[in-house]
Amino acid sequence: MTATEARPTASLGHEELHRIDRYWRAANYLSVGQIFLVDNPLLHEPLRAQHIKPRLLGHWGTVPGLNFLYAHLSHQVAKRGTEMMWIVGPGHGGPAAAATAWLDGTYTDVYPDVTQDTEGMRRLFRQFSFPGGLPSHNAPEIPGSIHEGGELGYSLAHAHGAAFDNPDLVVATVVGDGEAETGPLATSWQSHRFANPARDGAVLPILHLNGYKIANPSLLARIPEHELVSLLEGNGYHPRVVTADDPETAHVRMAEALDASLDEIADIQRDARSGGPVPNVRWPMLVLRSPKGWTGPDEVDGLPVEGTWRSHQVPLPAVRDDPEQLRALEEWLRSYRPGELFAPNGAPLPEVCASLPVPERRLSASPHANGGLLLKDLRLPDVRDYAVRVPEPGRVRHQATRVLGDYVGDVIRANPRTFRMMGPDETTSNKLDTAFADSGRAWDARRLPTDEYLDPDGRVMEVLSEHLCQGWLEGYLLTGRHGLFNSYEAFVHIVDSMFNQHAKWLKVTRDLPWRRPIASLNYLLSSHVWQQDHNGFTHQDPGFLDHVLNKKPEIIRVYLPPDTNSALVTTDRCLRMRDTINVVVAGKHPALSFLTMDQARAHLERGAGIWEWASTDDGAEPDVVLACAGDAPTRETLAAAALVREHLPELRVRVVNVVDLTRLTERHPHGMTDRQYDALFTANKPVIFAFHGYPSLVHRLTYRRHGHENLHVRGYKEEGTTTTPFDMLMLNDLDRFHLVMDVVDHIPGLGIRAAHLRQRMQDERMRCRAHTREYGDDPPDIRDWTWG
Amino acid sequence: MTATEARPTASLGHEELHRIDRYWRAANYLSVGQIFLVDNPLLHEPLRAQHIKPRLLGHWGTVPGLNFLYAHLSHQVAKRGTEMMWIVGPGHGGPAAAATAWLDGTYTDVYPDVTQDTEGMRRLFRQFSFPGGLPSHNAPEIPGSIHEGGELGYSLAHAHGAAFDNPDLVVATVVGDGEAETGPLATSWQSHRFANPARDGAVLPILHLNGYKIANPSLLARIPEHELVSLLEGNGYHPRVVTADDPETAHVRMAEALDASLDEIADIQRDARSGGPVPNVRWPMLVLRSPKGWTGPDEVDGLPVEGTWRSHQVPLPAVRDDPEQLRALEEWLRSYRPGELFAPNGAPLPEVCASLPVPERRLSASPHANGGLLLKDLRLPDVRDYAVRVPEPGRVRHQATRVLGDYVGDVIRANPRTFRMMGPDETTSNKLDTAFADSGRAWDARRLPTDEYLDPDGRVMEVLSEHLCQGWLEGYLLTGRHGLFNSYEAFVHIVDSMFNQHAKWLKVTRDLPWRRPIASLNYLLSSHVWQQDHNGFTHQDPGFLDHVLNKKPEIIRVYLPPDTNSALVTTDRCLRMRDTINVVVAGKHPALSFLTMDQARAHLERGAGIWEWASTDDGAEPDVVLACAGDAPTRETLAAAALVREHLPELRVRVVNVVDLTRLTERHPHGMTDRQYDALFTANKPVIFAFHGYPSLVHRLTYRRHGHENLHVRGYKEEGTTTTPFDMLMLNDLDRFHLVMDVVDHIPGLGIRAAHLRQRMQDERMRCRAHTREYGDDPPDIRDWTWG
Repeated sequence: MTATEARPTASLGHEELHRIDRYWRAANYLSVGQIFLVDNPLLHEPLRAQHIKPRLLGHWGTVPGLNFLYAHLSHQVAKRGTEMMWIVGPGHGGPAAAATAWLDGTYTDVYPDVTQDTEGMRRLFRQFSFPGGLPSHNAPEIPGSIHEGGELGYSLAHAHGAAFDNPDLVVATVVGDGEAETGPLATSWQSHRFANPARDGAVLPILHLNGYKIANPSLLARIPEHELVSLLEGNGYHPRVVTADDPETAHVRMAEALDASLDEIADIQRDARSGGPVPNVRWPMLVLRSPKGWTGPDEVDGLPVEGTWRSHQVPLPAVRDDPEQLRALEEWLRSYRPGELFAPNGAPLPEVCASLPVPERRLSASPHANGGLLLKDLRLPDVRDYAVRVPEPGRVRHQATRVLGDYVGDVIRANPRTFRMMGPDETTSNKLDTAFADSGRAWDARRLPTDEYLDPDGRVMEVLSEHLCQGWLEGYLLTGRHGLFNSYEAFVHIVDSMFNQHAKWLKVTRDLPWRRPIASLNYLLSSHVWQQDHNGFTHQDPGFLDHVLNKKPEIIRVYLPPDTNSALVTTDRCLRMRDTINVVVAGKHPALSFLTMDQARAHLERGAGIWEWASTDDGAEPDVVLACAGDAPTRETLAAAALVREHLPELRVRVVNVVDLTRLTERHPHGMTDRQYDALFTANKPVIFAFHGYPSLVHRLTYRRHGHENLHVRGYKEEGTTTTPFDMLMLNDLDRFHLVMDVVDHIPGLGIRAAHLRQRMQDERMRCRAHTREYGDDPPDIRDWTWG
Repeated sequence: MTATEARPTASLGHEELHRIDRYWRAANYLSVGQIFLVDNPLLHEPLRAQHIKPRLLGHWGTVPGLNFLYAHLSHQVAKRGTEMMWIVGPGHGGPAAAATAWLDGTYTDVYPDVTQDTEGMRRLFRQFSFPGGLPSHNAPEIPGSIHEGGELGYSLAHAHGAAFDNPDLVVATVVGDGEAETGPLATSWQSHRFANPARDGAVLPILHLNGYKIANPSLLARIPEHELVSLLEGNGYHPRVVTADDPETAHVRMAEALDASLDEIADIQRDARSGGPVPNVRWPMLVLRSPKGWTGPDEVDGLPVEGTWRSHQVPLPAVRDDPEQLRALEEWLRSYRPGELFAPNGAPLPEVCASLPVPERRLSASPHANGGLLLKDLRLPDVRDYAVRVPEPGRVRHQATRVLGDYVGDVIRANPRTFRMMGPDETTSNKLDTAFADSGRAWDARRLPTDEYLDPDGRVMEVLSEHLCQGWLEGYLLTGRHGLFNSYEAFVHIVDSMFNQHAKWLKVTRDLPWRRPIASLNYLLSSHVWQQDHNGFTHQDPGFLDHVLNKKPEIIRVYLPPDTNSALVTTDRCLRMRDTINVVVAGKHPALSFLTMDQARAHLERGAGIWEWASTDDGAEPDVVLACAGDAPTRETLAAAALVREHLPELRVRVVNVVDLTRLTERHPHGMTDRQYDALFTANKPVIFAFHGYPSLVHRLTYRRHGHENLHVRGYKEEGTTTTPFDMLMLNDLDRFHLVMDVVDHIPGLGIRAAHLRQRMQDERMRCRAHTREYGDDPPDIRDWTWG
């Protein structure tokens, strides 16, 4: 065991210690008040049942430890002038975050009606866990937060995202021992191996072992200490363990451990920034062992509470009805000696706030925690410079992601400290590798001569963890920068839940005027369902779109660019957006281009439009609409349109392409009016819609539209395997031949020629199937098909 | 560093070494053949372009290491008679798994047309990565697999699930160094802390560091070895590092390390099973460092291939067109000396298979990897014994999950070695704690006197990782046992992607007659969106149902029991099912009961039905249908029905409750016929549907039904916060008053009385809102409302 056990020293002066302790007591007092009181906040009169909230909903367990850490971190900032923000990983840390922000004055800065006096304190108490008030977590409503901690596991990833490219910032990150059991947190310990101490700020993890989760002990608190230390050292840290119980000793130990850790960070950074090679850095970190519910009731009803899971939530649940518990609560509150902490008018006394830093350095006032304040527009190259030449629609092939790679590479070049691309080791596979050809991929571990593009200063971040990619990017965006996450389409489901939480965060912050808009979170999904080749069924899943579209329409954008120029203009647009989550699905294989850059831009502006050059309705009402969204479905639709034109030339066919999926629903800000919708899709003609994803998604978006009963959607119906691209389409009835069959089936009275055509299409499918089974490839006429 | 560095010894006899090596070479030969050849499998003639597959789709990198391990594990099994299965964590291990199974004869047992001769070998080669053939992973089609490895990160969790309650089983688990970067794998190292060496089998993790992922180095291969060892020791292991390059030395080292590890497992088990206390067990594990693409081409086109990421996929990609590469391939294949391995007719020579165990112990033939073979029905208590008394509908309250907890507790008691419940420390919070009151919660780490219900032999498994809960349960089910996963509704999204993969696995295995059906995966979701109290917006998300319903209908069941007896009969039904994934959403708070046990059973049989006692249509065509699904929506619908009856008594109202959501869609095996649907919902009357989840889900399920344009769904529209249960409903327009307003709005010509009623409902909403804002609680008349 090589961890340093902190020992009391003289490094913390007597007065400093008392200042910190007063701040801690004040924060604890305010936290207990939030959980229990609606009135009589300063106990100016004896506590009575009517001062207690009618529904006691809150959590005490983690709070005193958080307050303790906040007091000590603030002290360090005041002493050193460090630029610091904090991240609260444990769930239910809300009362601590609100209490400390109120004590700092930040809460009142943001919510002027919650004043630093008795009435403000009463409001602070009342609103917590009260309808429409503050939830139990470090929610967006609380200044200083970029991490709510409602769903656990992402604190350390967020912290690293915040620290990247912020060389002067220290992100103190409290990791709960509950969240430490989650997968995302367990792999987050490796994040520092992608951080460059010369260029990036530092994360100071503080693993808070209070020993219990909701109703169970936490694992890391119960393994032998030598194993814990070994685990953290193996993760590349130099841990210092502070065991706290008696507050006075705890203060001294914590002050010493923080001092030493911050000194160590300064040393690492100085060494790295003096230009020498970056070694395998061992970063400092802290482990704080403190009792759950520290300073709370020892026992309630004869059962131990402090130091057990029973202090997780409300330790005195019957306080309104049980005079014994009411007395215990009053005793508990008075144990913090509020008279030494607050003036009679409720204002915190100067000696409580004496350990606070200068206002602009208060942890809860960090501008990094309101990243929109710091956000600058990206310097974007002119997307037209990347245009591919499309002399005629549907004749030449391009690889959308390859071209996007060039574009993103230049975005990186033009924004060398404010833009990053993340990906789970799929950037090359997704054909985006030119994005890092110049700037490299972030890598601080050992390098070998055979390595390529690995660079401690790399801007593309690759780690085989979608959780880390998402967590880092969220942290980076929330602190005012820009980025892009590229992933295989199927596996982005790994972060469904993280997406949910970010969408919820954005929904709330959009309604908080003091929270400035941040850059949008951009997903670029490639290696999509329609060409997986060897990977097969596990890699075929277009359901992220369905998932995303459950969230608030204001926040969600979904794009299915049909070709390379469309993918370019879409990505360019996404990189300019704020406070949304954008999903772009783009293919990586050579695929037909249909639109010039100008056409692509105009098409994106409309979001959906008629492709006249492929239509035979001559601007009049068509007999059938062939609609499509997504690159492969678009190609099949055009091939079907060509077949219909050839075999049923009298039929008026209209081809409609949808690039912005949310245009389809009237419930989205981008949604078409019914009139616009009818002008494209008609009010009553059959529409055969070839869709990239699950067909029900299109139905779900359009069920209120006119003529919905005539809408027939083909898409992925969960039929997949290892096979060729065209066979995949056939398995799901999305191939050109089946689309023609659908046309025949849905237009009554087409007669015998149509019946023959239908049979012929069936035969074509048989032919293709047989060819594929024989040669392991698509028939050349399918593979090489072009329009016109 | 305390890891043992394996050293060559005499422990592996000369003949044994050569047997193992021959098996390895044969497996490597067969793997290369699968990637490249369609013909000439034994090189009976010189290799020509037409022997090569037209599309080269496969992965070599991880394969030789897997073959190496399989040969050694087989040798150990043969020597010791151990009952062993293996799990292949790395992606793209398919060729190795198929090659070794074919060599063992298991592949031919299962697929008699893929014989152990030249023609069979040709088929084996041809089908790999060929349309409709084997994908690149250890797919369900391959005998011996319970873990496909298409999506990475779950090998170790699956392995532990397989080992639980299989005391004689050793699960050798190859962990890829790519997957080791994922969150789920990173936390899976802790799994053994929940395994009881006296009762459970052993997992032998083999961390395979071949150094590279798709296009990047892997992190754990590049951190200092002392850190790696420290990390694994901190995770509670005793690691042995085997560094392989020269095959002969590697064989000796691996044999020694495996010998020592299996001895150590035997020692641990003997100690634990002799009845003494279970200490903090340090399990053995292996680290294998071997070059990526070991034994493959050294260099191609002047660039290093073996030992770099360039060997990840097809190392000779131009072999069909480039004579140089063709020659290199032939050389490569011949380097394994096929003449020493296969008879002229293609059968493996006896000296290749001499190291194999007896047929029933072959790794690829393990019955545990085809769990349905071992599956026995659960002994289920009579669910009627748990019925709550419901004298009249809607008058008394019960807590559904509390009663379920009693039932599950007895299921555990009756099936002490074949049933487990998993949960991310939410079992108590979900009010299911009586489930472990008798049997305890699994816990092998340190215990304190204040702990409750922790037991090394506990049957309820709680760890704060949904990934581990899901992974363990999948492993447990796939090896022929039963279980239940209880989770907060919102956070089950954390395992969206794991759910996907399990659903895909089931879809494929259902079509493989030799794979016997396994017990269904049961989700019990509680702490649902409609009562979160303090937790607020982060905890409000009913979207898992949407996600689940994208998968094949045959595999998916979704139940929304309206009350306690319904939850009981639903759970009882789910525990009897096979090869499906069942989702049950049940509330944990006291809620009105409507159905007696017999009624609940009959209602579940129908899946959806008219509640006559709440309807006023007297069996005739109603004016409006009030439909509902979910406990809170059902209560609100009944309250709305009561309001309509009171205020618009002339209106004929029908109340329909849906318990089996898939009854709604004609595309599900449970789906109603149109006639049945119309008989419930009418063909053209307004239907106001109060739904538990996102409204669009109901539309998506019903868009083809008659009268869909008259269907108006209320549900969660992503409006949430910290508030009371009724306020949550109001925020989303799902409250009784709004439902009445909807009735008024959708029945034309109701006249002035209806208009007044509408206004009154608005006023009621205002009253409730004001009460909640003032008192922090719902009005008593709402909270205490009962039917009738």
